[in-house]
Amino acid sequence: MAMPSNYVALAHDFSTPVEIGFEPVTLASAREHGGDIYGAARALGLAPSEIVDFSASINPLGPPRSARRAFTKSYAEISHYPHLEGSDLREALARRHGLNPEKVLLGNGSAQLIYLICRALRPKSALVVHPAFCEYAHALELVGCAVRSYRLSADEEFRFCLTKLEPELRRELDLIFLANPNSVTGGLVPRSEIEELASLALRKRFFLVIDEAFIDFIEEESANRLLRANPYLIILRSLTKYYGLPGLRIGYLLGNEKIVRLLAHQQEPWSVNLPAQRVALACLGDEGFKSRTNRWLQGERKFLLKGLRRIPGLLPYPSRANFILVGCDRSPASEVRAFLLQRKILIRVCDSFLGLGKNFFRVAVRRRNDNRRLLKGLEEFTKSALCNRLS
Amino acid sequence: MAMPSNYVALAHDFSTPVEIGFEPVTLASAREHGGDIYGAARALGLAPSEIVDFSASINPLGPPRSARRAFTKSYAEISHYPHLEGSDLREALARRHGLNPEKVLLGNGSAQLIYLICRALRPKSALVVHPAFCEYAHALELVGCAVRSYRLSADEEFRFCLTKLEPELRRELDLIFLANPNSVTGGLVPRSEIEELASLALRKRFFLVIDEAFIDFIEEESANRLLRANPYLIILRSLTKYYGLPGLRIGYLLGNEKIVRLLAHQQEPWSVNLPAQRVALACLGDEGFKSRTNRWLQGERKFLLKGLRRIPGLLPYPSRANFILVGCDRSPASEVRAFLLQRKILIRVCDSFLGLGKNFFRVAVRRRNDNRRLLKGLEEFTKSALCNRLS
Repeated sequence: MAMPSNYVALAHDFSTPVEIGFEPVTLASAREHGGDIYGAARALGLAPSEIVDFSASINPLGPPRSARRAFTKSYAEISHYPHLEGSDLREALARRHGLNPEKVLLGNGSAQLIYLICRALRPKSALVVHPAFCEYAHALELVGCAVRSYRLSADEEFRFCLTKLEPELRRELDLIFLANPNSVTGGLVPRSEIEELASLALRKRFFLVIDEAFIDFIEEESANRLLRANPYLIILRSLTKYYGLPGLRIGYLLGNEKIVRLLAHQQEPWSVNLPAQRVALACLGDEGFKSRTNRWLQGERKFLLKGLRRIPGLLPYPSRANFILVGCDRSPASEVRAFLLQRKILIRVCDSFLGLGKNFFRVAVRRRNDNRRLLKGLEEFTKSALCNRLS
Repeated sequence: MAMPSNYVALAHDFSTPVEIGFEPVTLASAREHGGDIYGAARALGLAPSEIVDFSASINPLGPPRSARRAFTKSYAEISHYPHLEGSDLREALARRHGLNPEKVLLGNGSAQLIYLICRALRPKSALVVHPAFCEYAHALELVGCAVRSYRLSADEEFRFCLTKLEPELRRELDLIFLANPNSVTGGLVPRSEIEELASLALRKRFFLVIDEAFIDFIEEESANRLLRANPYLIILRSLTKYYGLPGLRIGYLLGNEKIVRLLAHQQEPWSVNLPAQRVALACLGDEGFKSRTNRWLQGERKFLLKGLRRIPGLLPYPSRANFILVGCDRSPASEVRAFLLQRKILIRVCDSFLGLGKNFFRVAVRRRNDNRRLLKGLEEFTKSALCNRLS
């Protein structure tokens, strides 16, 4: 077997001997993510904890106190393998959604499940609704799938409109990735459109994968009620964002029993580690955290949105999630980022998202003090940018 | 896209409509693993902690105290994503092995890396040396690889002999999975044979994947010194067994930089969660734990082996690892298991391993009191089995 000729080569492309080698790249270079406080901190010579991270959209009220207790307690079991199927947690999640546990599959973050879906279902032709998490397209490409992109338009405030998508649906199609709410803009697809799209999936036999990573903030909008009658619907869920636990890696998937079995059969054993399972279980039972979060988000998102709107040159988009996409026509977002980073504030520049140019950034909704600090930083930026232009 | 017709179906086999469906199976049914104290406890109506688990080969001295401190401390960072590349840990592992960090890849347990290797390298023809971890063949089959099995023989005490393997090496071959020490028998492949096999891999261009999950107990036998000159050598390592942390899920791989990049490119982001990274880093620095473990294992394995040899009808095999394979000619191992389970002792029946029949079981070396309890249980079993035969 000859060495892989190129690091992006797929199967059966391995033709060049090892001496020639492939392009040097850094790990995960093709994929960009928010939340890299380590890189930012290293660049500034700071400790990661000194950075106020607006780049990852994590609930700042989290993790709930119940999570810490469960985490500490889980150490007593650390010398045992985690339960292979994560039974307790699967059952709790099934109860939460009023579904059979056989419809639930745990994953090492929903990222693992995205890759697993692509590998197990092997779509030949797929559609990704953009702006979107970069891993959808990457996972599809790795299995040799032809990936088409449908871009929501900034001119229409990134509103999803099924009628406009229809020409795409008439072409050959095995699978759609759609985030709801959109993980970049925070926009929500109306219930009626989700229902219609799911019906189309069933009728035309393509898989509709709805990534509901941020739907916990508006749980009533989840498509899980459509699962019972539709084996072509797959819902991705995360516990990371809502409960403030991205360090733990825990996601899950809701789908038809047969699909869940197919995926489980191809999944690596013990994918979710034991502390993650225990903490997730504890969080699910924490009703107090839920109501505190909902109260906080309503008020705080409004506060941040209002503040952003007041700053000249910034155009924040309406969001139903815990983050806000901001257009900044007068300056590249990378300049905003660099300016704020000097103030130990990290934001997410959105130029790596298809359909967004270099003039967009995304900020998480954080606690009041942090949000004030962000707004102050942005005001200073616009002033200094104005001065630069005038001088 | 039609529904997958069968849950074991691979790509492009999807021809039957959803209404027909596939075989009902429980998750991970095709793969059997030790360490399922949850199932055993449930069957007996006990708490998992009441079971003395000899079925998973975990260092009973672990986890080290340094691990608990690091675990508890890691909670403060849980609201951040883990570092994408796990830089600190990668660097520490690279230092440990005297290698460049670019030769190290972290995984969600070595299980994730086994699957990743198969997906990324796409061997068409592979050889597995048995008895072996069931995941090798499963991971190979999932990528459509033709898998051949080479069985070490009980008559030769499962000794590996390269000369006997040679006919296999003359056939078409892209990849070999070989555990060293063997994860079922504890047998070690002599250094000279490993060197010769690695040279053959380089010359004949097949990948030699050596799973060194249990080599920490005899670190000087690791093939990592051969890595520098051999891009066809891939070494799998685990931190789970030696440090007593199977609940955490943390493994890694050593290999050529180009292979590491290829694999990293196809790996799911954030595969290793934050507590696992932090705890692993702390363990690596714990020299005291290492010397305590080495002292314990030497004496305790000898004690257990001697005790097992004294019991009529049991044939324990020599092991260089922290577990012992035992033949029990007079009774099926499942009977031994059932008998011991009544005494809250769990052992691993080995009938799912190719080349081992129903008369083998495996026990971990545990602390003296546990080992005594096991020996006592086994003595009682042989007596009762003898009585049954005589009556």
